[in-house]
Amino acid sequence: MINWKNTDTLASYQELANVKRVNLAEAMSGEQGAERVKNYSVSMTEGLDYNYAAKEVDDTVIDALAKLADEAQLVDKFEALYNGEVINTGENRLVLHHLTRGQLGDKVVADGVDKRAFYVEQQEKIADFANKVHAGEIVNGAGEKFTTVVQIGIGGSDLGPRAMYLALENWAKKNGLFKMEAKFISNVDPDDAAAVLNAIDVAHSIFVLVSKSGTTLETLTNESFVKDALKNAGLDASKHMIAVTSETSPLAKSDDYLAAFFMDDYIGGRYSSTSAVGGAVLSLAFGPEVFAQFLEGAAAADKSATNKDVRKNAALLDAMIGVYERNILGYPATAVLPYSQALSRFPAHLQQLDMESNGKSVNRFGEPVDYVTGPVIFGEPGTNGQHSFYQLLHQGTDIVPLQFIGFKNSQIGTDVVIQDSTSQQKLCANVAAQIVAFACGKSDENRNKNFEGGRPSSIIIGEKLDPKTLGALLAHYENKVMFQGFVWNLNSFDQEGVQLGKVLAKRVLAHETDGALKVFSDLLNI
Amino acid sequence: MINWKNTDTLASYQELANVKRVNLAEAMSGEQGAERVKNYSVSMTEGLDYNYAAKEVDDTVIDALAKLADEAQLVDKFEALYNGEVINTGENRLVLHHLTRGQLGDKVVADGVDKRAFYVEQQEKIADFANKVHAGEIVNGAGEKFTTVVQIGIGGSDLGPRAMYLALENWAKKNGLFKMEAKFISNVDPDDAAAVLNAIDVAHSIFVLVSKSGTTLETLTNESFVKDALKNAGLDASKHMIAVTSETSPLAKSDDYLAAFFMDDYIGGRYSSTSAVGGAVLSLAFGPEVFAQFLEGAAAADKSATNKDVRKNAALLDAMIGVYERNILGYPATAVLPYSQALSRFPAHLQQLDMESNGKSVNRFGEPVDYVTGPVIFGEPGTNGQHSFYQLLHQGTDIVPLQFIGFKNSQIGTDVVIQDSTSQQKLCANVAAQIVAFACGKSDENRNKNFEGGRPSSIIIGEKLDPKTLGALLAHYENKVMFQGFVWNLNSFDQEGVQLGKVLAKRVLAHETDGALKVFSDLLNI
Repeated sequence: MINWKNTDTLASYQELANVKRVNLAEAMSGEQGAERVKNYSVSMTEGLDYNYAAKEVDDTVIDALAKLADEAQLVDKFEALYNGEVINTGENRLVLHHLTRGQLGDKVVADGVDKRAFYVEQQEKIADFANKVHAGEIVNGAGEKFTTVVQIGIGGSDLGPRAMYLALENWAKKNGLFKMEAKFISNVDPDDAAAVLNAIDVAHSIFVLVSKSGTTLETLTNESFVKDALKNAGLDASKHMIAVTSETSPLAKSDDYLAAFFMDDYIGGRYSSTSAVGGAVLSLAFGPEVFAQFLEGAAAADKSATNKDVRKNAALLDAMIGVYERNILGYPATAVLPYSQALSRFPAHLQQLDMESNGKSVNRFGEPVDYVTGPVIFGEPGTNGQHSFYQLLHQGTDIVPLQFIGFKNSQIGTDVVIQDSTSQQKLCANVAAQIVAFACGKSDENRNKNFEGGRPSSIIIGEKLDPKTLGALLAHYENKVMFQGFVWNLNSFDQEGVQLGKVLAKRVLAHETDGALKVFSDLLNI
Repeated sequence: MINWKNTDTLASYQELANVKRVNLAEAMSGEQGAERVKNYSVSMTEGLDYNYAAKEVDDTVIDALAKLADEAQLVDKFEALYNGEVINTGENRLVLHHLTRGQLGDKVVADGVDKRAFYVEQQEKIADFANKVHAGEIVNGAGEKFTTVVQIGIGGSDLGPRAMYLALENWAKKNGLFKMEAKFISNVDPDDAAAVLNAIDVAHSIFVLVSKSGTTLETLTNESFVKDALKNAGLDASKHMIAVTSETSPLAKSDDYLAAFFMDDYIGGRYSSTSAVGGAVLSLAFGPEVFAQFLEGAAAADKSATNKDVRKNAALLDAMIGVYERNILGYPATAVLPYSQALSRFPAHLQQLDMESNGKSVNRFGEPVDYVTGPVIFGEPGTNGQHSFYQLLHQGTDIVPLQFIGFKNSQIGTDVVIQDSTSQQKLCANVAAQIVAFACGKSDENRNKNFEGGRPSSIIIGEKLDPKTLGALLAHYENKVMFQGFVWNLNSFDQEGVQLGKVLAKRVLAHETDGALKVFSDLLNI
């Protein structure tokens, strides 16, 4: 029997506040520190570990977090979710993105359809389509092969797939698996579409229009942009466009598209990278086998998230430590810092995933909560960040918890030895050094050069960033955010906060405004 | 007589806390709201206005902020800075980035040199060099024209110039001023350099090595990467590389470079976009005239920042409102939201500018301060952000002050009409709508669809993003950050917080570690 209760009504949450705080600088010093690094590690999936040695926790804190996780029934709630309970209560929807990459529990039937079978069918249809494009069986009007794929979508239809594409682009090139270049058009700013269209060869481009409802204004506007460009080049747009949408959308059965692939209301945009939304563009760019490996990695991370032991469930542990940092230690933001240039846009994806899911002030019953929920999420790749905002992270007046990601090996493998080390070694040396610098600090009589330390971080360490580890990384964060939403008793799967702006923007465009909005509209020449 | 005092020792700061708070939702409603939008606006420079109607201020608050600005002698301190006082006291250096774009006050002589003349000389040398490259007078070993310029640098040598390049790329193409494509290599991750080198035609590329000291490890490592690539292509590296460095660095007089252009210790990395650091790559990409216009815009914004009236000095006002939000209202983060795809990397630049300058816990005398200083800065372009993290901004438990930027006109001018409006109109309608949605909110019986409002924002409204307005924007934020550093009595021009990580990373690479650092090094295979 699952109970949906506010965090502050749970006895174990009250206890958590009384648990003795950890002195991180002390805990991470000397042999004790070395032992922590060895022991405070959880395997996420093959070749990927979550290390929390440099977090402000010890066994007592973890025990208290485990108790909270139990009392809040987090793993039971996950089980209910993947078995098809209506978890997105506000919108009366199931939450099924896990089913796009595996079947963790019972068969889930919705609207009379076996949903796992439905998602697999879409994956297979996409695979078939992509193979035909790569084989030159599906071609442009002149009978020539397509060389570029352009995703048209915004929000979850853009950030996740784009981050995944960038994460695998060089890996695929290195491994002879690169099929087509991908580009992305998202912003309603006309300069976005115009710049992409100026940079590609439209005659050899295939466009993926992604909109679940088929009514997203930005996306439909950009579709028109693309159709104009195709027409101006004397091309038949319907020979260049495919749709990813829901079966009930106006795009689903239109002759305007070469093909349509489906997702449904049970997959939120920010959770859609493993559905057809990511599937079409990634299968076209890298081939369906690469996309399948990506799903395999995600499935493995999902599986590990079902473990009831918080010490063996990296997503759960990461979530609980985050709750501790946010609600007990009072830190308002979290930085995501991948030491991998390939993950340059991964923080932007996580920003949406986390802030759109848990940036809420009411619980799943629509009642205001009396505690803080989702933090601000931001980040840039290291080592670049080190030469930028790390100053504040090290010596600012606020403490910002950090999430590092690092890989032992580079993707391309080209490297140089300077001052007796490779660039890859320098990259890894920097992330190791940063963890210890943040945790332990360093005293200096010159207070300007003094580092207090006590600044917490975790690190996910991988062998190499490849489709499997990328899938696992993605799923890890999805599950972390889900668990945090459960702790806070939120509905992590709706996004009512984006509605008001849309309504007002329509009013501006219809010139139905007054007061401040009217004056701003005038100032902006609308 | 200038006094450097901590914020909390100033009488006007104590008073500020007692000023009556503004009810923003109320203030922005009805005719009163319309009046605010009309009146709460400051001209920054031609075609660029700062509007603060949707901030939690009124005339009483602004008066109190003006008093604080006066008592803290902010404009006097700026005057001292541009007249050549040693403002970067920790490092015993002048702070002269304003001189790269104009002479606001007295002649500044340092090390026996008229610094304004020195910066102009560098700008002219670069202009001459760029013109010769464009004219085919400086060519590669085979006598062919260069087509690509690649900046090798990190931190301020990367983020600012890259953001500026992206901001003007489409504008230059549209206006027939695009000379060469620019690429950037920054990260020590070997995949960064390898990917860029795989994507360009090295035989026709000119590389700009940027390192003030000539010893930045990431940059020297990436230089080796590039030299290897040139050698492997059978090319003479010294025919393909130029240096931007200080006159005393090992790079300054090396035969390894076609030319060297100089900056000096008085220009911090994050303030260097208007120096040779931005000058070389931008002049090569767009021509020296475009770079000169960019400087002109920056100079105009600098000039407006000398105004003692806070209501006529946008940078000062923006700074003071930020201090009010941070120290009195207690908001820990600020989001920068440009409604312009061309400004996609501008928030990343501002993140460095702000967080590296003011993310500090000691005052300029090295004494700990008892108040919070620089906030976390993050952001992405709208409308993309609307479909992502805006959920938290609208309905999250924390309030995040917002800084919008919008332009009446697009850069490229290609547009489509969908549902009776152009994309540019939709873009502008969205930013106008967001400001009002954040400020006023909207009551709903369904609490999940309820918007509290009271979430403050400002907007910079411009005619069009071009070199002049871009320069003014850049300088506006530099000056804002400078004024805030003055209020908080910080040295905004050093960055001691980045040192400890460097020291520890070197130790890791030398295998001179123990404890936690040793175990992390092992886990990462270093």
